[in-house]
Amino acid sequence: MSHAEPDESTTDSERTRGDLAGPVTISYIAESAGVSIPTVSKVLNGRSGVAADTRARVEALVSQYGYRRPAPSTRSNMMELVFDELQHMWGVEIIRGVERVAREHRMGVVLTEFGPQRSAIRYWIDDTLARRPACIVTVAQLSEQQRGQLRARGIPFVVVDPTVELPGDVPFVGATNWTGGRSAARHLIELGHRRIAMISGPDRVLCCQARLDGYRSAMAAAGLATDADLVVRTDLTQDDGRAAALNLLARPNRPTAIFAGNDLQALGVYQAARSLGLRIPTDLSVVGFDDLPIAALMDPPLTTVHQPLTEMAVAATELALALGRGERTPQLGLELATSLTIRQSTAPPPA
Amino acid sequence: MSHAEPDESTTDSERTRGDLAGPVTISYIAESAGVSIPTVSKVLNGRSGVAADTRARVEALVSQYGYRRPAPSTRSNMMELVFDELQHMWGVEIIRGVERVAREHRMGVVLTEFGPQRSAIRYWIDDTLARRPACIVTVAQLSEQQRGQLRARGIPFVVVDPTVELPGDVPFVGATNWTGGRSAARHLIELGHRRIAMISGPDRVLCCQARLDGYRSAMAAAGLATDADLVVRTDLTQDDGRAAALNLLARPNRPTAIFAGNDLQALGVYQAARSLGLRIPTDLSVVGFDDLPIAALMDPPLTTVHQPLTEMAVAATELALALGRGERTPQLGLELATSLTIRQSTAPPPA
Repeated sequence: MSHAEPDESTTDSERTRGDLAGPVTISYIAESAGVSIPTVSKVLNGRSGVAADTRARVEALVSQYGYRRPAPSTRSNMMELVFDELQHMWGVEIIRGVERVAREHRMGVVLTEFGPQRSAIRYWIDDTLARRPACIVTVAQLSEQQRGQLRARGIPFVVVDPTVELPGDVPFVGATNWTGGRSAARHLIELGHRRIAMISGPDRVLCCQARLDGYRSAMAAAGLATDADLVVRTDLTQDDGRAAALNLLARPNRPTAIFAGNDLQALGVYQAARSLGLRIPTDLSVVGFDDLPIAALMDPPLTTVHQPLTEMAVAATELALALGRGERTPQLGLELATSLTIRQSTAPPPA
Repeated sequence: MSHAEPDESTTDSERTRGDLAGPVTISYIAESAGVSIPTVSKVLNGRSGVAADTRARVEALVSQYGYRRPAPSTRSNMMELVFDELQHMWGVEIIRGVERVAREHRMGVVLTEFGPQRSAIRYWIDDTLARRPACIVTVAQLSEQQRGQLRARGIPFVVVDPTVELPGDVPFVGATNWTGGRSAARHLIELGHRRIAMISGPDRVLCCQARLDGYRSAMAAAGLATDADLVVRTDLTQDDGRAAALNLLARPNRPTAIFAGNDLQALGVYQAARSLGLRIPTDLSVVGFDDLPIAALMDPPLTTVHQPLTEMAVAATELALALGRGERTPQLGLELATSLTIRQSTAPPPA
């Protein structure tokens, strides 16, 4: 191949790399700087986690070579939606939100469930990089390495309902779990309950911590003691909810209300109450969390904290698409408001 | 452009269309025959619905021009999954089945929900034809025109759980609804029930007709009369199930068992029974249909006919992929077996 000699109109970058055809790539910059592609990407995206001198070296090379991220116009009209494992009650709510926004933008949605043992993750990242989607909405946990690979290719992603604490530079859409826990407990307090138990999920799940702290905050605000024995931690399943409720309700000074960590646990509380001959809400008030489709179908219909899963998916998709268009967004993380849905499982405590 | 004169090695088709560059297309054949593309496609795929003389004319042209359907190797490693509207209880079961097979074949799945007023269907067919997927699995109703467009492009499709009668040439995977209805009623008969009511869905929904006929068949086989007043038709919702059950249970000679057209109606039957002070299964046995995730969560857990939605989606995806590879499959339509899942909502009738 022949290359023209540099002339007056040649830019710095063209002069410096006269041996190369085509535009400067991020991998060329990484190689020149002696760093990884994710590191270059971090610098390019203004994210943290890069040592100051490395950052300076990369920035100098980027400036020298005149690197530009590929223009959004080279992207496809496809986006990706990723789950670890699709959950019966959650999955459809989230998919519907993504599909709603996708329709507005006439965007195809490639849906991937990593599946048992997350088997699909081995090839998903390669196939996704090959598909060059406009953006990614993920309910699945991506590793720091995977996030780096996506960033390096300029493929933006947004996490829906993160279950663990994420680095500050990862865009996400969650729900106000603390406020939701607080509103559930306050509702029971306002009905006159004083002995209010909470069946909480595991502490390692971030939203469970937030819900529990919200409950404690409302109790404290009302001047009520949160007896340690009124708080039980167990898994977010119906069976564990039933076992925990049986334990709580067998005590001499049993609670008059139970706030469950999610709707499945609340379903277990219903079973426990029924097996003990306790009527809901006459003998026992119950509040759940999530407002899954099942909540309205329960007998009696469950008072629960509504988590706007569909709206969270809508917001995440809109944020991801905006990032895909190269727009600057005012903020990368947001929590949508939960709201208490009052149905028929709560009433004043027995006289 | 220059074209060589026909020589000894030139085929018939090349001789006949010496004025054309590139391979013969299906639209060229349609134009030559004076028929629509779907008609040519029907002939090519050996399907019915084409007049004998039209079929003969198209076949002559196809033979003359040596038309070949595009080789599967030109297809992408993507497939499509289509819903009219995603249902909370059904959607995830079907998606998981499709995803499971897609993972085995390292196939990307483009998921489309047509949405309210089926708004996405306006562009979906164009976008899908442009994407050239390997195949399509559809829960949505496609029109005869859309099916023709897909056939003309050689994009195979399989319908999951068809709700209406389809032409004989449309591949589908359903469930044995008649057999399921029969097994539900037989289970109740074997427990000793004689007055067994059925709350059926609307007659326009094909599977509801089949379930009802299965119930009637089991009753007749046991020599039991199916009193007309023991069969109620209503929508497949919880509210309609409750209203129908309240009506049935208010009669002087009330049934001792109710077979509901689906699990949501069964949930309504539970509510009706509870509001009348009837215990399940001591006073009233209840059987549902579908075995949605909710069935096992009900109190008591619901005896119901299991519809293998995930397996149906698996079978449909495997069939669609096989058709996409150009394989001949032994049959284009199949029904997977339903099975009775006995839980705790059924017992012998009260003495």
